[in-house]
Amino acid sequence: MTDYLALQKQRIDSFLDGYLLPETARPEIIHKAVRYSVFSGGKRFRASLCIAANDTFAGGTESIIPVAAGIELIHTYSLIHDDLPCMDNDDLRRGKPTSHKVFGENIAVLAGDALNALAFDLVSSAEDCRLVRILAHAIGTEGMIGGQVEDIASNGLDNLTEEDIRYIHTMKTAKLIQASLEMGAVHAGAALSRTDIIREFGARIGLAFQIVDDILDIESSDEVLGKDVGSDVENDKATYPKVCGLDRSKVFARAAIDEAHRFLAQLEEDTTMLGELADFVINRVN
Amino acid sequence: MTDYLALQKQRIDSFLDGYLLPETARPEIIHKAVRYSVFSGGKRFRASLCIAANDTFAGGTESIIPVAAGIELIHTYSLIHDDLPCMDNDDLRRGKPTSHKVFGENIAVLAGDALNALAFDLVSSAEDCRLVRILAHAIGTEGMIGGQVEDIASNGLDNLTEEDIRYIHTMKTAKLIQASLEMGAVHAGAALSRTDIIREFGARIGLAFQIVDDILDIESSDEVLGKDVGSDVENDKATYPKVCGLDRSKVFARAAIDEAHRFLAQLEEDTTMLGELADFVINRVN
Repeated sequence: MTDYLALQKQRIDSFLDGYLLPETARPEIIHKAVRYSVFSGGKRFRASLCIAANDTFAGGTESIIPVAAGIELIHTYSLIHDDLPCMDNDDLRRGKPTSHKVFGENIAVLAGDALNALAFDLVSSAEDCRLVRILAHAIGTEGMIGGQVEDIASNGLDNLTEEDIRYIHTMKTAKLIQASLEMGAVHAGAALSRTDIIREFGARIGLAFQIVDDILDIESSDEVLGKDVGSDVENDKATYPKVCGLDRSKVFARAAIDEAHRFLAQLEEDTTMLGELADFVINRVN
Repeated sequence: MTDYLALQKQRIDSFLDGYLLPETARPEIIHKAVRYSVFSGGKRFRASLCIAANDTFAGGTESIIPVAAGIELIHTYSLIHDDLPCMDNDDLRRGKPTSHKVFGENIAVLAGDALNALAFDLVSSAEDCRLVRILAHAIGTEGMIGGQVEDIASNGLDNLTEEDIRYIHTMKTAKLIQASLEMGAVHAGAALSRTDIIREFGARIGLAFQIVDDILDIESSDEVLGKDVGSDVENDKATYPKVCGLDRSKVFARAAIDEAHRFLAQLEEDTTMLGELADFVINRVN
């Protein structure tokens, strides 16, 4: 993790610890389940993007923190539901048993549902309904959920094209990453032309993020990744390496990050942090 | 159904038909699943409460319709998830096979998730973040989801008190009904003192609604109810009749509606519609 990411993670974790109800609140099991998944060691990459986009245009305001934290709750809910037996059926996530293995399937479904609602509570704290809509669209059937549907449907298929896999990864992963940046820019009051550039930037690093995920599933180790390496191949998942091969996948990821930097170069603002976060996507090891 | 309910149902259904993506939108299965559950014959009772509360204080504005429709999407999502095999494992809902029986468990989970997000998109259309927060709180771990957790945990228990069952029903059902009314009043710009009365009214009819649900599960027929009568007893669910007996359950429901009317009487506005909706709760047959 970069120093910047480490710092933002601390801010987000500290905020969420104060915001989420304690494990002793009634009914205890759901509050335990919520905290178990929220504090399972996520990097807070999406929150950091949101904060960095905001700070790029507004020079730092604390009111972005609840919004950024809300995005992380959405990400957490999506992981809990993706891991369910009826979805990817994963037992391990970030080196720990998945929610349904610890609390049961019913509580895992409800913990995800609760996080979905809590996220909108947090995002609404900025008193700007545009942020609520950007998030809702990014995670709907034309975004994250649509991508998950196509992802499930494409398991085991052998005739996927590059266009197919690009579509799935864009929907499943890039839309929320893009929205994180857009929400930061909109909250900062960035001009529409600049928000558009940030959106293009987000589409590239979002796609690269998922391609790198696919590559790490092949080239990393269980210990570093915190989940079973090789599970994509085992489950015959739709991945870039499966469709394009490992070498071309790396070329595509690199190209997407290069494109992202070219969009940043169009901005007059200081984009050092956003540039660092783009590089993190391609340099990360887990 | 009363004439008023029938009219509001028409408005909400017509709005949602235009709002929701067509079944042919990619990915088709999720859009089919969303429409299947949304248009499965719901009475739109919660939406009607929201509209009636708004109209009581503001004399009718069209901008409440998307907000009220959003509440129905939340209600629909909660039913889809409640019916899942890992929850109540119900095969039938409103006389039709449940979502997971038709589309599979994974799509049913995702359809619920999608509706959850769409609901916030709709509620945000009123450009008032207070409405987003009222809804988010009502369906969170201190509301609907908390109630569902306690409901699951209390299956098969024989030592439930009247206080326990009142708590479960309040959380599981009354909170969302109360929020529907509150959102209407807030949207209409009602004074705080009047919104408080509406909240008290909502708590009473919400509780009565779930007690009547329990009673209908014993006294109705499969055809009228659209689901298997007696399933609560079969699954040893926590219900008012189980804890207090059938006769006292009817007394409690009646008393809650009478209390609700007394709160309405404190308002100077014309509360005819809200009063009719309260009576519908106790007179309904399905």
